Amino acid sequence: MTAEHIVKSFDDELKLLNRTIAQMGGLSEVQLQTATDALMRRDAELAGKVIQADKRIDELEHQIGEMAVRMLALRQPMASDLREVVAALKISADLERIGDYATNIAKRAIAISQAQPVSTLQAIPRMGQLVQSIIKDVLDAYVDKNAERAVAAWSRDEEVDSLYNSLFRELLTYMMEDPRNIGSCIHLMFIAKNIERIGDHATNIAETVYFLVHGRGIEIARPKGDVTSYAIAPTPGGRAGA
Amino acid sequence: MTAEHIVKSFDDELKLLNRTIAQMGGLSEVQLQTATDALMRRDAELAGKVIQADKRIDELEHQIGEMAVRMLALRQPMASDLREVVAALKISADLERIGDYATNIAKRAIAISQAQPVSTLQAIPRMGQLVQSIIKDVLDAYVDKNAERAVAAWSRDEEVDSLYNSLFRELLTYMMEDPRNIGSCIHLMFIAKNIERIGDHATNIAETVYFLVHGRGIEIARPKGDVTSYAIAPTPGGRAGA
Repeated sequence: MTAEHIVKSFDDELKLLNRTIAQMGGLSEVQLQTATDALMRRDAELAGKVIQADKRIDELEHQIGEMAVRMLALRQPMASDLREVVAALKISADLERIGDYATNIAKRAIAISQAQPVSTLQAIPRMGQLVQSIIKDVLDAYVDKNAERAVAAWSRDEEVDSLYNSLFRELLTYMMEDPRNIGSCIHLMFIAKNIERIGDHATNIAETVYFLVHGRGIEIARPKGDVTSYAIAPTPGGRAGA
Repeated sequence: MTAEHIVKSFDDELKLLNRTIAQMGGLSEVQLQTATDALMRRDAELAGKVIQADKRIDELEHQIGEMAVRMLALRQPMASDLREVVAALKISADLERIGDYATNIAKRAIAISQAQPVSTLQAIPRMGQLVQSIIKDVLDAYVDKNAERAVAAWSRDEEVDSLYNSLFRELLTYMMEDPRNIGSCIHLMFIAKNIERIGDHATNIAETVYFLVHGRGIEIARPKGDVTSYAIAPTPGGRAGA
């Protein structure tokens, strides 16, 4: 009886842990969406709401951390139960970072709302929507313990990198054409980089879901597509290396 | 006898865990140093070595993760022992990210080595040395379980942010003065941002050390000094908002 009671109660705790992760994930998804909307609408007030709401995500991470440590200490879980608790710690850390990046996008949206509009802005929400759908998929995969769905979402990170690379180049050209664009374009570059990083964290979550289900890591090489770090600094007028 | 044997053996495992973290920390420190050196010397070969060496850091994180999970499963540690294992997981995740940022600096160092030199480069190694000394201090604080030293290192993150903010502005001016600088300056901005992020991860480690020693978080507000996200996009010639 006692053993069964403990088992049942651990399951209840696990359900609460899963639910809190799902809630935190939902919030992070909305934060990215709202930050991108605020940027597109040049709406500083909406961006301010994103910055405010980040506290809630931090609180949820803290709650999950306390729950997980309590479960480790009092329940001493083994095998797949232990993986559940370790996975919760990892996923909540990734979601917290996603929240931070969304907040940074919102801060930059406020700055940009006061500068002249930049035409390349359209590629940003495209990237945002793609990453948002990947976050949604990895969270669904987490809730359903579906490793295949996690891998499918994981492999879409390449699309994100490809969008990022072309947007980066576009912004660079734009800056060189007209120095008045430099300030806004730098914010947009960091925003694009933030979205790309959010995609990396979604990829991490997919890897954690796979580990949770199978007890081992994904055995395909990780998609790594941001090539802009290697891009040779362009010098217009063929003055390269001068 | 058996109980004592188990306790002794847990201590041995803990020592190995601590040593592996210290080793990983030392490597991350060297990676940052070497990446900055490669940038300053325009030495693409040295930068390539940093990129290669990142694998070792990833391996160490993997080892620490496996050790920690095994200790949780087989030893079922409580109280401060449990905090030790959870802290090891957190610190190794931060060190892994520090390694990734150092690698990204190295990639950008390769790109920059092929472009025309930029005079503002000097502020980068200054930032790098500061962050490196903070990493060293938090790692020493970890080894000695010295919370005060961790807090002292933690509070120095403000200096990093202040260096970052002035460097950012300097680079912006430089880009607007001469569009041929744009490509290199963007790499330098991302490098500076990477070093600033490394500082944030060192700050995380300081917080983990404090938690490890005291069983609760640091109760002062976190220093947050990167104001460039809020910087209004400058438009030279007083054409703001045009």
